Amino acid sequence: MTDHIVRSYDADLEGLRRSLAEMGGMAERMLGDATVALVRRDTTLAQKIISADQRLDNLQREVEEKAVLTIARRQPLANDLRELISAIRIAADVERVGDLAKNIAKRAVAISGQFQPPHRAVVGLEHISRLVQAQLKDVLDAYAAGNEQKALEVWRRDDEIDALYTSLFRELLTYMMEDPRNITFCTHLLFCAKNIERIGDHTTNIAETIHYLITGDSLDANRPKLDTTNIEVEAITGS
Amino acid sequence: MTDHIVRSYDADLEGLRRSLAEMGGMAERMLGDATVALVRRDTTLAQKIISADQRLDNLQREVEEKAVLTIARRQPLANDLRELISAIRIAADVERVGDLAKNIAKRAVAISGQFQPPHRAVVGLEHISRLVQAQLKDVLDAYAAGNEQKALEVWRRDDEIDALYTSLFRELLTYMMEDPRNITFCTHLLFCAKNIERIGDHTTNIAETIHYLITGDSLDANRPKLDTTNIEVEAITGS
Repeated sequence: MTDHIVRSYDADLEGLRRSLAEMGGMAERMLGDATVALVRRDTTLAQKIISADQRLDNLQREVEEKAVLTIARRQPLANDLRELISAIRIAADVERVGDLAKNIAKRAVAISGQFQPPHRAVVGLEHISRLVQAQLKDVLDAYAAGNEQKALEVWRRDDEIDALYTSLFRELLTYMMEDPRNITFCTHLLFCAKNIERIGDHTTNIAETIHYLITGDSLDANRPKLDTTNIEVEAITGS
Repeated sequence: MTDHIVRSYDADLEGLRRSLAEMGGMAERMLGDATVALVRRDTTLAQKIISADQRLDNLQREVEEKAVLTIARRQPLANDLRELISAIRIAADVERVGDLAKNIAKRAVAISGQFQPPHRAVVGLEHISRLVQAQLKDVLDAYAAGNEQKALEVWRRDDEIDALYTSLFRELLTYMMEDPRNITFCTHLLFCAKNIERIGDHTTNIAETIHYLITGDSLDANRPKLDTTNIEVEAITGS
């Protein structure tokens, strides 16, 4: 490529990375705020999160369009092409994280009027949410720094999150069985916990994309997946 | 473009459309089979679905790679570019449908040993699943035929599915409150119902992509979204 084309190509890439950084910061905040809104039953904060999501969706669409146009205009090869494909994939994962956080915020509104179950019911959820927030921050930092090692660490830690989710699922079922008045609230918490676990899956997707970006090959095949809800649940409910 | 390039470009596109048709057929079968496996507690069928999903994931990756390489090699403009972007988006949605069907199959295995709740608990789930299967078939036919009208009909019908999901959610909660032995089984049914509702969302995504493919502009803004679980639930549980 000529110097001129290379420079404008780098400018395209720089713009994409900036948009992705903005998207990542938004998604991190949305997850943190959604958890606070849920635990404190803060419907005002919940509404803020719900309306913030549109901006994230627009940014994702922009990144996708810009990346595809860059591919079409500059017909990049190998590394450059991977950069653009990775931007599209990461934007899609971050946008899904925002959707899942928004969904938690919606449930915070839904349960605001519900019977209040024992506080310990939300403690486990706060814990798993903090871990997933850290995973999300680390994987976005790993992308910004082009640090494959850090991305791999995030990828490996996903099984902890899945295991935590499984025990939380089990714990919430017991509250529902203890007192039917807990059922509605805890059902929403179950869905929130599942959303947080899925956000964890998106952080591993991003880690896989970083690996693909840096090495050129795929991690998917041997990805850790340990949602053992089924076995665990049978174990406690007997029947 | 020269005739030769045009011909090989058309061949690329033809290959993508064939792969998408295969993916669509697989996803339709997976959803149908997963519902049967759940209702009949057929763990053998469930295992078949779980192992079938890998093939769908591979096809999606292939479609994405082929489409991106075609964009990079031929730097297509306007319509041709939309064709390729649409193929990437539809492949991603169909792959997610397969994941959700696989998740239902996993839960069919999970509840196979559980206390059997009243049969009426699964009737509503069968019903919503049949509707979503029809939506999925229609939207894939609309894509194959380039029929925007048919795609828009699918897009408009999504609110029926959301409304059905909301009443099913409410119905399942009542079974859980009636008898704590139903809680584990019905919790898994709640997640299955949510997965089916999400498959419905992916069919509307595909309808939006078809609209974008044919008209060049986006439908997203005014997409019907009526998951009113929250209000409904408060309405019945009082608290």
